[in-house]
Amino acid sequence: MTTRIYENTYFYIDKEDATIPWVKIFAQKPYKELSDCDEQTKKAMLDAMQIVEKVMLDYYHPDKINIAMFGNYVPHLHIHVMARFKEDSHFPESMWGIKQRDSKLKLASFDSFVLQLCQKLSQTN
Amino acid sequence: MTTRIYENTYFYIDKEDATIPWVKIFAQKPYKELSDCDEQTKKAMLDAMQIVEKVMLDYYHPDKINIAMFGNYVPHLHIHVMARFKEDSHFPESMWGIKQRDSKLKLASFDSFVLQLCQKLSQTN
Repeated sequence: MTTRIYENTYFYIDKEDATIPWVKIFAQKPYKELSDCDEQTKKAMLDAMQIVEKVMLDYYHPDKINIAMFGNYVPHLHIHVMARFKEDSHFPESMWGIKQRDSKLKLASFDSFVLQLCQKLSQTN
Repeated sequence: MTTRIYENTYFYIDKEDATIPWVKIFAQKPYKELSDCDEQTKKAMLDAMQIVEKVMLDYYHPDKINIAMFGNYVPHLHIHVMARFKEDSHFPESMWGIKQRDSKLKLASFDSFVLQLCQKLSQTN
């Protein structure tokens, strides 16, 4: 099940079902690469990526933000933004790497994070 | 051994020693997250990321570009930009995932790619 947390003309943001705070920003149009985007979509997505990062940092105080644009399985442009913690399941490996441990993270409410994120995103658009 | 392929006031670009075309754009200053950057560095790095992507697409015609900002091991802001091919060692997994096969890629000259990349980067700055 996909949880949609935000949407506008240019992109939508889905929650990844994971043990860390992890969202994916998808272009509304079926672009494959960042280079394929019209300028407005590109700007909107890169701005959103930075807003997600900033709200994650302020809200979760993670040890590191991880960002990725892969799309090898799903060639529809999307940006992963993840809050990483030293005690999460994979740190310091990427979330696509080898699992290091069972996660015992106790995280603040994702719903409250989404509320703050949507406020910031709405202020920007 | 690190191969430096480009440098300016805001960032430098190193070649990753890999079986695919793979470069890393590092901030000159020891920023940890994209949010920590001054505006000029942030713009310069995100512009460079897009130029690297575009030149890789035009030069190598890969099946997909992969971009990542992790920095869990090295908390010094850097952007990985990779040209991915269906027959590369890890596709469709990320380069941090499980190896799928031995790579038998026959790639065009990396030196010529660097030449084209540096021309584009110099035109932009």
